[in-house]
Amino acid sequence: MLIDCKSLAKKIEEETVELLKNSKKQAKLVSYALNPDPSTVSYLKSQQKKAQTLGIEYVMKIFDNSQELVENLKKDSQDETVHGIFVAHPLPKDIDELSVVSLINPEKDIEGRNPVNLGRLFFGIEDFAPCTAAAVVEILTSTTSLEGKKAVIVGRSVTVGQPVAVMLLRKDRSATVTVCHTKTKNLVELTKSADIVVVAVGKPYFLTPEMVKEEAVVVDVGINVVEGKVVGDVHPDVEKKAFLTPVPGGVGVVTTSILMYRVARNAFRGG
Amino acid sequence: MLIDCKSLAKKIEEETVELLKNSKKQAKLVSYALNPDPSTVSYLKSQQKKAQTLGIEYVMKIFDNSQELVENLKKDSQDETVHGIFVAHPLPKDIDELSVVSLINPEKDIEGRNPVNLGRLFFGIEDFAPCTAAAVVEILTSTTSLEGKKAVIVGRSVTVGQPVAVMLLRKDRSATVTVCHTKTKNLVELTKSADIVVVAVGKPYFLTPEMVKEEAVVVDVGINVVEGKVVGDVHPDVEKKAFLTPVPGGVGVVTTSILMYRVARNAFRGG
Repeated sequence: MLIDCKSLAKKIEEETVELLKNSKKQAKLVSYALNPDPSTVSYLKSQQKKAQTLGIEYVMKIFDNSQELVENLKKDSQDETVHGIFVAHPLPKDIDELSVVSLINPEKDIEGRNPVNLGRLFFGIEDFAPCTAAAVVEILTSTTSLEGKKAVIVGRSVTVGQPVAVMLLRKDRSATVTVCHTKTKNLVELTKSADIVVVAVGKPYFLTPEMVKEEAVVVDVGINVVEGKVVGDVHPDVEKKAFLTPVPGGVGVVTTSILMYRVARNAFRGG
Repeated sequence: MLIDCKSLAKKIEEETVELLKNSKKQAKLVSYALNPDPSTVSYLKSQQKKAQTLGIEYVMKIFDNSQELVENLKKDSQDETVHGIFVAHPLPKDIDELSVVSLINPEKDIEGRNPVNLGRLFFGIEDFAPCTAAAVVEILTSTTSLEGKKAVIVGRSVTVGQPVAVMLLRKDRSATVTVCHTKTKNLVELTKSADIVVVAVGKPYFLTPEMVKEEAVVVDVGINVVEGKVVGDVHPDVEKKAFLTPVPGGVGVVTTSILMYRVARNAFRGG
């Protein structure tokens, strides 16, 4: 069975509209990119469209050198009229990503990449949790109870695997969490015994129906292009025995709605 | 078999002495406490003794109000002659711990409690990892290979369970990591299948020999007082079938040596 992520995204969007309506300030989002490839530009354009539909002012800043990006980041981080800052990833390989994301004002870091916001997760504070991880957790908590459940996360990235692990351990969730990766032995044994499986490995159809138990809840974080079609990390047949988020129209749409919600929340709080 | 943690601590101490010898600055550690109980004072005194033995200048600041503590923390964080800041925990319940530890200059945060230093763990940067977690990882890497091993962590604290999980996932270690806690079902099944078990639950003799497989590596983070005697979270008989860190003389001594090492490293780097 497919998990209805679009309804969840819509619900978050309604809350966003409500916040914007009650905000005394014009909400503003600034998105950054450094020498972006066409797919990044197209992503930013869809972000722009979504923001404008909601009534959020949107500024796209595309740079061809990192110094200018850094100077602008510092300025916008202090600018009271800016409520959210987004930096498109991946950055070119010669840039130290950690030093760039550390410059984003943690309170405007809607994507949740500044290490301060990652560190706060250990304390259970998730206002600016990594946005994709926040979407995964939002989908899970709205789909199933988590207490005492076996959650297996496949993938250990900074933006998904690691933060989702920490977030699912929080006392109001209390899943038993296992993180797997390329060096894991007997992966199938682990995924097959799990009540919840989160997959973020970037390999099309990596998780097959044989690897999942009946009625498990499976969250597919993958976005892969195969023969011009966007597909996930999970084989679509998994939905025949388990609950599965679709790709596209799954984690991605919830992530976008969370990004916009955070901009609105900042504008609302700021006035 | 018992794991020889004292030799490991001694090795770290030798490196510390070497750094201090080659440092142009007098290393200085400032430790803070707010209305400490007698056991905290006694801990700080043993810390003082260790620092002085090594030639580290030691200042103990004991406050009876949080405002003074906060003002001093801010000042020492900026003071170039201070190379390490330690705040004794737990703080009184009416103090927001996160806001206090966030004031510590991350580069002097030898205990690794500032969220910035926790967040950096996700990126694999462990210069100021939580000190007890760092000791656990140091003991494990000096005892066994970790790649592909099943590591089960019992306990999900900010200072041990969560950071150890993230650290054992780092690519140069690559254990498969499971975090368990009070809501975990079938805990015995999990610990019994583990190659590595880390226990930090604060319950005397919580992990019994029946819960551990032959030749597993078991790290006991517990410090409990039972009938006037310090005992761990692991039953001593576990050492008959597995490799076990002693309590006392295990994780604790390595933690202290790491704290001193970090002060020395800062003094060395600073001149």
